[in-house]
Amino acid sequence: MKKLLIFFCLPLFSKAQVNDSLFIRKMADELLTNGRAYEWLRQLTKQIGGRLAGSPQFEKAVKWGEAVMKEAGADNVTLQECMMPNWNRGGRDAATIITIDGKKSNRSLDVLALGNSLGTNGNPVTAEVITVADYTELEAKKDLLKGKIVYYNYKFNPRNIDPSISYAEAGQYRRSGASRAAKYGAVGVIIRSLTEATDNNPHTGGMTYNDSFPKIPAVAVGGDDADYLWSLGKKSSFTISMTTSGKFLPDAKGYNVIGELKGSVNADTYITIGGHLDSWDVNEGAHDDGAGVVHTLEILRTLKALGYQPKHSIRFVLFANEENGLRGGTKYAEEAKAKNEKHLFALESDEGGFTPRGFGFTMNTTQLKKVQSWMPLLAPYGTGILRMGGGGADIGPLNRNLGTALGGFLPDAQRYFDVHHARSDIFENVHKRELLLGALNMAALVYLVDQYGL
Amino acid sequence: MKKLLIFFCLPLFSKAQVNDSLFIRKMADELLTNGRAYEWLRQLTKQIGGRLAGSPQFEKAVKWGEAVMKEAGADNVTLQECMMPNWNRGGRDAATIITIDGKKSNRSLDVLALGNSLGTNGNPVTAEVITVADYTELEAKKDLLKGKIVYYNYKFNPRNIDPSISYAEAGQYRRSGASRAAKYGAVGVIIRSLTEATDNNPHTGGMTYNDSFPKIPAVAVGGDDADYLWSLGKKSSFTISMTTSGKFLPDAKGYNVIGELKGSVNADTYITIGGHLDSWDVNEGAHDDGAGVVHTLEILRTLKALGYQPKHSIRFVLFANEENGLRGGTKYAEEAKAKNEKHLFALESDEGGFTPRGFGFTMNTTQLKKVQSWMPLLAPYGTGILRMGGGGADIGPLNRNLGTALGGFLPDAQRYFDVHHARSDIFENVHKRELLLGALNMAALVYLVDQYGL
Repeated sequence: MKKLLIFFCLPLFSKAQVNDSLFIRKMADELLTNGRAYEWLRQLTKQIGGRLAGSPQFEKAVKWGEAVMKEAGADNVTLQECMMPNWNRGGRDAATIITIDGKKSNRSLDVLALGNSLGTNGNPVTAEVITVADYTELEAKKDLLKGKIVYYNYKFNPRNIDPSISYAEAGQYRRSGASRAAKYGAVGVIIRSLTEATDNNPHTGGMTYNDSFPKIPAVAVGGDDADYLWSLGKKSSFTISMTTSGKFLPDAKGYNVIGELKGSVNADTYITIGGHLDSWDVNEGAHDDGAGVVHTLEILRTLKALGYQPKHSIRFVLFANEENGLRGGTKYAEEAKAKNEKHLFALESDEGGFTPRGFGFTMNTTQLKKVQSWMPLLAPYGTGILRMGGGGADIGPLNRNLGTALGGFLPDAQRYFDVHHARSDIFENVHKRELLLGALNMAALVYLVDQYGL
Repeated sequence: MKKLLIFFCLPLFSKAQVNDSLFIRKMADELLTNGRAYEWLRQLTKQIGGRLAGSPQFEKAVKWGEAVMKEAGADNVTLQECMMPNWNRGGRDAATIITIDGKKSNRSLDVLALGNSLGTNGNPVTAEVITVADYTELEAKKDLLKGKIVYYNYKFNPRNIDPSISYAEAGQYRRSGASRAAKYGAVGVIIRSLTEATDNNPHTGGMTYNDSFPKIPAVAVGGDDADYLWSLGKKSSFTISMTTSGKFLPDAKGYNVIGELKGSVNADTYITIGGHLDSWDVNEGAHDDGAGVVHTLEILRTLKALGYQPKHSIRFVLFANEENGLRGGTKYAEEAKAKNEKHLFALESDEGGFTPRGFGFTMNTTQLKKVQSWMPLLAPYGTGILRMGGGGADIGPLNRNLGTALGGFLPDAQRYFDVHHARSDIFENVHKRELLLGALNMAALVYLVDQYGL
């Protein structure tokens, strides 16, 4: 029926579009029949696992990425060195409610320290808890916070159709909640995880301290514990004892893994496709961003398997250290600028390996119109959205430094924040065909940009 | 950002469209904040479970559906009686490889008898196995089949972007494979399950016998066992012993559960929304079709919660016996015809509770154009497809008997056939927000049809 559709549409297409349509269909056949992305993801998640910048697993992932980049058929593979922050969780994070209304309690919470947060030096921090819904309530209660632990209950707004908007709204509590509370003398913070998941997994993720205030410990709790703390705070006073062990080791050497297909016409102009190789330490980094890594490798493999000769040079990049430093993406753009490289387009996959919905772009409106004219070629494979707004953290510096046009792959977003930065971001939660279809839609877009420019 | 989008778009909308846009946004807020669909699905799947026509669980489901229809706010609730076939699995299905190349084996396969297939009367059927890829190979081997068990290895075509096309292609082996083999003297059949799932769950589903040939037992195997049988057949001769216990009991009384919201302008013209209440016996019928049941109930609840007065009468129907008889849908259309009712539109949800992609329609092109003009109102909630072709098994008779225009909800299809008719179709594999968003997109479409007709 899909094949019929293509031929049915032929009269509406120009000859070039017919050729494009047939080539994209060939990519689909190759990718859906011989695709390696799912098996590569199994290797990355099950044989290496969590791979935070600075960890031995990250080093293993670099070696793995280099080998698979060659297996996939890159003309050449290089490692681009960068120094990365080296935060280490240091041990098991713990928090226990030890009194409720003055009576002894022993209810433990399932917590994860936020990334980059500093530990309690082996001594638990014990204090009464002040619960607040948001920063407005924090400010209203600022005189009560000295010596206390603050619990932020800020919830994902369920009315947003796109949960990434809820994530953007709630993110400030993870990133800045500790210092905002420390400013008023708080000694620790607990946040409701940035998720609407119906389980109790806590979600870690990057935070930063404001150097003007004490660097207090910060942890996240999952949905059930969050609901419990919030209702407990409504009726009782309670005390929590929390222990974390986060610390920074000296910066570590890391690498962007870069594979290249040499351009046959404009070899000095680059198209970049990438995802990030690092992940948080508490999971397998399957959706975040194992999916982006294997999308990138699969597009390379597919183009090569079909003997495609790109007009422009295409770089396939596994970026180092997106999660807690962005040093890989920063380095890539710095070097591009230093070498005065021409970068036509960069495309990132860092929103999971779910079923494809489309792409968001950071480019001018003329460029966007051109991309939107390709909709009939992309729609049969799942793309329904080609909109302004989007890109990715790792390719952002290319846009800021060189003005490069950006695209961000948009898989369906409903399930992403269920697993994002949580223990549940594992291989088993990635669906083989959804993963392959993501690579396919990205490959088709890259092919069209390579053929027609922007 | 979504809210901003609406106001940004206002100048492009007529006044009526602005009102429509605001009302649909109100439905979204109500549904995503107070939606009951997920909890209702938990009740239906966990408190009742599998509910094949004729089973005590189906009777319980009718009582439950009647109660929830009232809870959701129907003006009146009726039970529409119909007689249903009453197939019973009768016990545990089993198949074991007992010899390989004449040597004893004891490898058991995980099998499920196909629905409506007849059992082996307590005596295992034991025979050598002939493996075939498809009917072409079956015909080529027809002289070898007497007294043998046939294994059909027909695989889902991974190149179809939409797996429901693969399902349509492969379905003939489940439906007719037994009689096609019995015609040449085969004594049993095993089929590869209709799925591309990466697990070993067998998938049951309806089959029918051709009365001209012996009614031989028929079972399905999951992916791993299927791969094993196929490769074994390439190099060895082997014998399988299979036991099934399927039988038909006397037809059972069943009911369509029908809730109604009375129309305020055209009360004698009906819009029907429905899903089917029955499921296979081996799972919880969560996606198939618990999702369609709770979509239907949730749309009713949401319209009622907002005090919506429909112009047309809207019927919310939980159909009896879709899986192995279609007696509920048939009865509904028969009675509509007998009473000379006017039916404007019928919408079915029977493809799972996954993230919404759009709708397929059986209507004339003028009607389809009108529906497609509503795309800007539906797209913010996930709808990207409004295409010709679609409807649903239960509402099909309305179209055939009365010419009623049909719509079928199209959730993302990639995961559906992983769980369809398998033990894995359970509550845990349904995602809360995806389920609610499906109800929302259906509710918005129904609202627009009610407001503007077709």
